[in-house]
Amino acid sequence: MKRLVLGVQYDGSRWHGWQTQPSGQTVQDQLEKALSAFAKSAVKTTCAGRTDAGVHALEQVIHFDTELDRSMYSWMNGVNAFLPDSIAVLWANEVPFDDPDAQDNFHARFSAYARTYHYVLYNNPVRSPLWAQRAGWVFRSLDVSKMREATSYLLGEHDFTVFRAAACQAKSPIKHMYDVQIRQQGDLLIFTLRASAFLHHMVRNIIGSLLFVGIGKKEPDWIEHLLISRDRSLSAPTFMPDGLYLAKIDYDKKWDLPQNKNDNFLGLLPLNDSQ
Amino acid sequence: MKRLVLGVQYDGSRWHGWQTQPSGQTVQDQLEKALSAFAKSAVKTTCAGRTDAGVHALEQVIHFDTELDRSMYSWMNGVNAFLPDSIAVLWANEVPFDDPDAQDNFHARFSAYARTYHYVLYNNPVRSPLWAQRAGWVFRSLDVSKMREATSYLLGEHDFTVFRAAACQAKSPIKHMYDVQIRQQGDLLIFTLRASAFLHHMVRNIIGSLLFVGIGKKEPDWIEHLLISRDRSLSAPTFMPDGLYLAKIDYDKKWDLPQNKNDNFLGLLPLNDSQ
Repeated sequence: MKRLVLGVQYDGSRWHGWQTQPSGQTVQDQLEKALSAFAKSAVKTTCAGRTDAGVHALEQVIHFDTELDRSMYSWMNGVNAFLPDSIAVLWANEVPFDDPDAQDNFHARFSAYARTYHYVLYNNPVRSPLWAQRAGWVFRSLDVSKMREATSYLLGEHDFTVFRAAACQAKSPIKHMYDVQIRQQGDLLIFTLRASAFLHHMVRNIIGSLLFVGIGKKEPDWIEHLLISRDRSLSAPTFMPDGLYLAKIDYDKKWDLPQNKNDNFLGLLPLNDSQ
Repeated sequence: MKRLVLGVQYDGSRWHGWQTQPSGQTVQDQLEKALSAFAKSAVKTTCAGRTDAGVHALEQVIHFDTELDRSMYSWMNGVNAFLPDSIAVLWANEVPFDDPDAQDNFHARFSAYARTYHYVLYNNPVRSPLWAQRAGWVFRSLDVSKMREATSYLLGEHDFTVFRAAACQAKSPIKHMYDVQIRQQGDLLIFTLRASAFLHHMVRNIIGSLLFVGIGKKEPDWIEHLLISRDRSLSAPTFMPDGLYLAKIDYDKKWDLPQNKNDNFLGLLPLNDSQ
C-alpha cells in the first residue's frame, strides 16, 4: 500500500463545499469519483482543511492510500482528465508508508502545522461582474490603516471563540495567529491570515469584524474586546464566502512536497514561509 | 429625447456573446431587458464592439435614446438592480443630442477611434481551475521574446484579411494597429492590442498565430508573410475565446466620458492613452 499526497486547486463557487454529501455536488465527491475512475477502485480522501460552499482553494492538500503503481505525472494528468474544469490536481507526491499503523505517517490534516487563507475584497461603489463569486464586495470606503491597526490584536495565541461558528467541531478554540496582512492592489484589498489552524467560519467572521472597523462603526481595539469576551453574539456577521481562498498548508520539509510551484493567481503567492 | 452612454462590464463566459438572439441569452438581451424594466419602456442599445460568446468586457461602451429624466447615478444603480451578477453598468453619461438627425452626434461605434483588447493566457503544464473561462491555456513553454519580435510586424496599417473570420461584416480589412504588448506576470502572459478597429476573430486569430511562433513551429517573420498573403488558410486556427477581454474604447475627449475609473482587474488598466 502507498500513501499519495495531492495538491488540489478549485473554484469553490461551482460546488457545495469540500465535504462529501449525498448530492455528490462537492469537491471531495468529484475528486474521489475522478481518482476512483483513474485507479479503477474506490478511493477515499482526507483533506487538510474542509472548505465551505463558495470557498476556493489555491492549493488544498489531500492524501489517500492506494495499491496502484503509477508515476506521479500519471496521477496528476490522468486524474485531471476525469475532473471538471473547476477542479484540478496541481501535483502528486508519494510519502513513506512502510507501516500503515505508525503514528508518524504523513496525514494531510494532522501533519499540517499552519494554514494560510487569503480573503480578496473588491472595494468600489459599483460591483464588478468579473469579481463576482471571486471576491467579497464592499461599496463603502474603508479605512485601511485602522483595519491594519485592528489586525495587531489578532496576533499570537488567543481563544478565538468569538469568531467560531456554532457548528465548529474543533477540539479547542485556542489557536496561534502567526501573521495577518492587508495589501492594496487597485480596488482590491487582499487579507492574508496565517495561523496554526482555523475554527469554522473564523476567517469570514474576522473579516466581517475588521470591516466594521474599516467603515468606522467600531474602533480598532474593539477586536481586542471581542477576543476577551468570547461571546459570538458581539462580533460582526459572517462575511460572504466569495473572496475566501485556502492558499497554503504548511508541512515539515521532510515530507518534500512540491508545494508553491503554482504562483499563478493574482500574484498572491508566493507566501512568506517563515513563522 | 436624450442620448445616454453607458460603460458596461461583463463576464462573457455566462452568455452567448453580445448580440441579441431569440434565446435571450446574450449580454445585449439582458442589458436591454434591465434598461427597459428601469425605464418602463422598450430600450434598444448600440454597442462599440460586438463580442463573441465567451469573450469578456472590462468596459464595453453602449448608447441608447430615452425620454426618461433620471440622474446618471440612478441609471447606473437602478439598472444594475435588474442585471445578473455577471453584467454591470459601471457609469452612465449624457451626451449632447439637440438634433437627433445631426451627423456628428455621439455614436458608440462610429465615434470610436480606437479599441483595446487584452488576451490573458495561462502558461503552465497544469490547467488552473481559477483561470478556467477567464484565460486561454497553453501547457507548452513559450518563447516570449520571439513572440514579441513577431508582434512588430503587426504594427501600422495593414490589410488584415489573413486574420479575418469568414463571417466578418467589416467594410474594409485595412486597419491600423497602434500598439501590441506582451507582459508577463507569474504564469500569465497578457497580450494587449490597440487598433483603429478589429475584424471578426482578429485578436483570437493573431493570438493563435503568435502562439505558433511561441512554441517554435514558426519563425517571427512568418507573421509578415501571413499579412502579405491575405490567405486565411495559412494562419493558425482561431484561439479559444476564454482569455479575451474588450478593455477600452477610445473617444474624443469632447464627449467627456468617465472612462477608465475602474482600474479593477488584474492591474491590467490603466492603459496608455497615447497613439
